[in-house]
Amino acid sequence: MIRCIIVGYGFLGRKLAKEIAAHKIQDLKLVGIASSKGYLYKESGFKPEDLPEKIAEAQGFKEAPAFELISRELADLLIELTPTNIENGEPGLSHIRQALEEGMDVVTANKGPIALAYEELTSLARERDAMLLYEATVGGGIPIISLQKRCLAADELLSIKGILNGTTNYILSRMHFEEMTFELALREAQMLGIAERDPTLDIEGIDTALKIVILANSLMNAGKKLNDVKIKGIRKITSEAIAAAKESGMTIKLIGIANEEELSVAPRLIKLGDPLCVHGTLNAINLNLRILGSLTIIGEGAGESTLSALINDVYEVVKARRISTSKNALNE
Amino acid sequence: MIRCIIVGYGFLGRKLAKEIAAHKIQDLKLVGIASSKGYLYKESGFKPEDLPEKIAEAQGFKEAPAFELISRELADLLIELTPTNIENGEPGLSHIRQALEEGMDVVTANKGPIALAYEELTSLARERDAMLLYEATVGGGIPIISLQKRCLAADELLSIKGILNGTTNYILSRMHFEEMTFELALREAQMLGIAERDPTLDIEGIDTALKIVILANSLMNAGKKLNDVKIKGIRKITSEAIAAAKESGMTIKLIGIANEEELSVAPRLIKLGDPLCVHGTLNAINLNLRILGSLTIIGEGAGESTLSALINDVYEVVKARRISTSKNALNE
Repeated sequence: MIRCIIVGYGFLGRKLAKEIAAHKIQDLKLVGIASSKGYLYKESGFKPEDLPEKIAEAQGFKEAPAFELISRELADLLIELTPTNIENGEPGLSHIRQALEEGMDVVTANKGPIALAYEELTSLARERDAMLLYEATVGGGIPIISLQKRCLAADELLSIKGILNGTTNYILSRMHFEEMTFELALREAQMLGIAERDPTLDIEGIDTALKIVILANSLMNAGKKLNDVKIKGIRKITSEAIAAAKESGMTIKLIGIANEEELSVAPRLIKLGDPLCVHGTLNAINLNLRILGSLTIIGEGAGESTLSALINDVYEVVKARRISTSKNALNE
Repeated sequence: MIRCIIVGYGFLGRKLAKEIAAHKIQDLKLVGIASSKGYLYKESGFKPEDLPEKIAEAQGFKEAPAFELISRELADLLIELTPTNIENGEPGLSHIRQALEEGMDVVTANKGPIALAYEELTSLARERDAMLLYEATVGGGIPIISLQKRCLAADELLSIKGILNGTTNYILSRMHFEEMTFELALREAQMLGIAERDPTLDIEGIDTALKIVILANSLMNAGKKLNDVKIKGIRKITSEAIAAAKESGMTIKLIGIANEEELSVAPRLIKLGDPLCVHGTLNAINLNLRILGSLTIIGEGAGESTLSALINDVYEVVKARRISTSKNALNE
């Protein structure tokens, strides 16, 4: 039985806890959940009915940092879901670092640590023979990282480009189809909960930049930092610019690009019939490979779909550990 | 070193032989190639310069059936690339059956045997502890089967729908954009080599049916036969029907569908903005999953892109056998 803990108990954390507690993944039990306030630990594993809406209100609540819970004594797998911090990746970075140092496996949806400390964390994981999976950091449920690593590894990846941020895609789509101004489309997105009150990270292209640097490092071994990405946001896109594009059968989308020569995020013209040209909150990622040519994958880039990426990563850890355990058993 | 043979030496066979002979895959050598005329065998492995354009003209040619070559004594992996025969799957079916019975692994692009004898062949493979991979039978290079099996297995697949035939998609796209008649678009496709001289299998939806039954069996454990697919082709689609769809922002595409209630191929109305609505010779496949929701993957459905699916399947066999060999070594 593999023991896991969830650190970060927001929308995704609560949903994932329910799935694991309901034994949707065999041989896995949830023994701890933590928020910024403190944590709960239950050695025998949480049942669905044990899961509180808020950790601090539950019986057995311990007001203490999550670090106390991140220990090989208590668990085998850390699922790190604290919010993305693009300044220094904290507290997620320290959580992940501690878990890997303990030889625990890690699954995360937290872009900060993976974008800011990719080299450090992947080296640490290799060194400690631990797994570090982060499919949920890019493109919501779209399994772009595992697709490349598990299904296309024998081909040769030449370039990646994608619409990686649902908020800006929603705004640009409204500007295209409804001929709204940027400000109006942004306000609508905020009212619908698609854009945050402070939309800077999305609008200025920083969220897309985090994702494209994760893809470049993970799939192309680029060895790049967030600072290496040339970033241009969509704040200056006018309805006139989009109308002009529309007249030529095109539109403007915020596109992240990674290839040998370029690592960038910028608004770009794209043909309306292009498979990459998706609308609303959809994300789309295009891979160009030496033999295969062009491959595009499209899905919801946020919300509940991200839960699928997390569950599949968790399943991958459980599967791998099950095999390695039975291998050890054979060898003994 | 894993020894492989290629049976079926047409466009794909020649391309794949070149890649393997050039050592694009480590620990793999090509020891035999066969066509309907006979075969060549070289224990030490073919080098790129050894590969003939036509087998029958090469030194060492043996005029004998491929069956002589399909033996565990001579090779570990059969790559079966003879043409699809929808009547009885032959000769591919017998080739694959023989290889599996010998305990050889099999990679194939041949739809016939997989669509007609899925249950028999997968059971036989399980029984003999052999691998049977057939990514190249559906959607060209689009890794739809491995995507579901290796990246999404912990979610729950509810339905599949797709544009799975490039020829009919080309014809329908020309009818949509150029307002051609069906007959004219077909003739153009034939002139360009996109449609075959006898286009029946494509036009009547049979090729799509083979693919949707493979997907249903492989990804949903449907246990279906080709006869279970309700099939309707595109021969009766008029330019008027497409023009009427166009006026409502839609078009007509030949769609294969597999879900709990339905297994069908038919021309269907589809919105022009739908991610599944791709044009030209592109294929597109949409999966609907319990948690993830809707995921669409788009790529070229034929030609050189199929080579990518073959190479990735071959790589998967080599990787798996390398691991199992080192495991045995540990146990000895």
